[in-house]
Amino acid sequence: MTLPSTMKAAVLTGHGGLEMLQYREDWPVPVPTADQVLVKVGACGMNNTDINTRVGWYSKTVTAATSGEALLDGETEDPSWGGTPLGFPRIQGADVVGTVAALGANANPDLLGKRVMMDCWLRDWDDPLNKDKTGYIGSECDGGFAEYMVIDHRNVGVVESELSDAELATFACSYSTAEGMLTRANVTEQDVVLVTGASGGVGSALIQLANRRGANVIALASPGKHPEIAKLSPAAILPRAPQDLKQALRAQIGRDSVSVVADIVGGAYFPTLIEVLERGGRYTCSGAIGGPIVDLDLRTLYLSDLTFTGSTVLPPQIFRDLVGYVERGEVRPMLAATYPLRDIHAAQTAFTEKTHTGNFALIP
Amino acid sequence: MTLPSTMKAAVLTGHGGLEMLQYREDWPVPVPTADQVLVKVGACGMNNTDINTRVGWYSKTVTAATSGEALLDGETEDPSWGGTPLGFPRIQGADVVGTVAALGANANPDLLGKRVMMDCWLRDWDDPLNKDKTGYIGSECDGGFAEYMVIDHRNVGVVESELSDAELATFACSYSTAEGMLTRANVTEQDVVLVTGASGGVGSALIQLANRRGANVIALASPGKHPEIAKLSPAAILPRAPQDLKQALRAQIGRDSVSVVADIVGGAYFPTLIEVLERGGRYTCSGAIGGPIVDLDLRTLYLSDLTFTGSTVLPPQIFRDLVGYVERGEVRPMLAATYPLRDIHAAQTAFTEKTHTGNFALIP
Repeated sequence: MTLPSTMKAAVLTGHGGLEMLQYREDWPVPVPTADQVLVKVGACGMNNTDINTRVGWYSKTVTAATSGEALLDGETEDPSWGGTPLGFPRIQGADVVGTVAALGANANPDLLGKRVMMDCWLRDWDDPLNKDKTGYIGSECDGGFAEYMVIDHRNVGVVESELSDAELATFACSYSTAEGMLTRANVTEQDVVLVTGASGGVGSALIQLANRRGANVIALASPGKHPEIAKLSPAAILPRAPQDLKQALRAQIGRDSVSVVADIVGGAYFPTLIEVLERGGRYTCSGAIGGPIVDLDLRTLYLSDLTFTGSTVLPPQIFRDLVGYVERGEVRPMLAATYPLRDIHAAQTAFTEKTHTGNFALIP
Repeated sequence: MTLPSTMKAAVLTGHGGLEMLQYREDWPVPVPTADQVLVKVGACGMNNTDINTRVGWYSKTVTAATSGEALLDGETEDPSWGGTPLGFPRIQGADVVGTVAALGANANPDLLGKRVMMDCWLRDWDDPLNKDKTGYIGSECDGGFAEYMVIDHRNVGVVESELSDAELATFACSYSTAEGMLTRANVTEQDVVLVTGASGGVGSALIQLANRRGANVIALASPGKHPEIAKLSPAAILPRAPQDLKQALRAQIGRDSVSVVADIVGGAYFPTLIEVLERGGRYTCSGAIGGPIVDLDLRTLYLSDLTFTGSTVLPPQIFRDLVGYVERGEVRPMLAATYPLRDIHAAQTAFTEKTHTGNFALIP
């Protein structure tokens, strides 16, 4: 295979608005090191984390209600999810599906030409469970908003599936995040799980993956999205923020409490979510698109013996398990739209309007 | 043994201030049912929970900064820790040490005349691990602010110790609470544990019980109390709320993060406590004397993979273990003061001023 020397890429030149995201057709194609493979990108999913990183929402100095409103000021010291500043220029995009086009010396030769998904978590592969030695594709290294990217050969997973590249590119980021949350909360078939933001990528993944574990799922989402969400077969669907959540639950499932809340929204509704947890209930969180700063009544936490788990850095097993779920058809994609890479501004604008259900993918 | 028909007792007549707590000398001595024993109270420890229950602080409608300021309004529906209204009149006092003076038909006859401590948790003894079927001595049944009390024979633990009754009455409530917190957070010798409110009953118990597990303990308390706290051998003692906690930690222990925060204070300092947790760190809570409503940045919870555990209802094993620690001298009492039962108003006034270090006990 002959490889070009330049490629199309969406290049982030600094934290800020869409103007910081430049579409280029002359970007150098990266060259794999000994431990890396070069992947020709077929599709790259778009996720909240791409927006969060661009606008600097992960900085604790930003308290804007939603990531869409957050804009970094010049004083911020820790604008990335992990506290280490990003290097620029940076190509974002974590959710990559493509074909292995070239190999470093240490990569398994069988990978060449294979269709792969990627574990989004960069690791020290001599110490892969060490959560302090991690990075994220598109944040601590260049990602898939480009025609080609390089990645450690141990991050790719060969996938056999009849799904399209764009459909496969809905899984790695959202579904790993969701599976990580459910794993942290130890969700089983004994549980009733309340899922917020059920129309988004992680939310729709939470429904499917909690169902897969045999739990009963209650989905919260805007009524206009209920028909799409119903296809994922939650036990019940409620509006996004019922004023009397206990009453709404009682009407739908005959009890006014749940054992697990899986939340990616946070914001002003957080206290209501916590109040419906039964004694010993678990709250698990991997996002706060409705606003990160919430009012917590510690009495609710301690008098009801609750457990809260945050989930970000995932062990490698989560991705390996996910590839199996995909190959066996245990999860299905919810692809809301695809955009050509050159239209990334339009894609991100539409994405942040949150009128869609499921995931977006960019095609280079 | 001839038993009197009336006794001294501090009787709570309703939620409110000290005027609701009436000292009586003509209260009927209770009669044990088949499953109960009658205990002649030698001493009864005083704890925050007694104050919290009296003033109705456990009600979620009360948002006063501290329990001392909280006063229940007439609208409150769930004024007790567990959401079920208290019955009045009620004799409070959970931390009872005394001698078994009479037996119900089903109680082990060997208990008669034995010196006992009590597990503060009332249980359904056919289903003792069910946290939904519990009560607390002094809340869901009468407690030890009296000369006599009755309790299920399975709640008492015979204790052999050279400590006085008042010294022994510092353990059951505070130390079980503390051990429950450390158990929920799974504290081991690998941990660096930051303890708030280190001069109080639970705080001083946390220091000793975390030390017992081999952890490194950093205690937070007002400087005036540091000499007393130093006797418990924490690895370091810091002021109650250092403005730059990371810097203060670095200066004392050479690192600016901890693996566990064991908190009974909450309030305005909560965000600072959470910020010093390392990735994967645990926050465990069993009180909020500095104020229950706190600002939580969900990004801190999820981006650092934190776990929060609330601890209230304890499994029976915690109390059984504690009796062993006491008998083997693995924990030592910090008895700040004793008061005659008739001076309960003065005792509670002094207790809420928080100028003491350790526990108070009432002697009937």
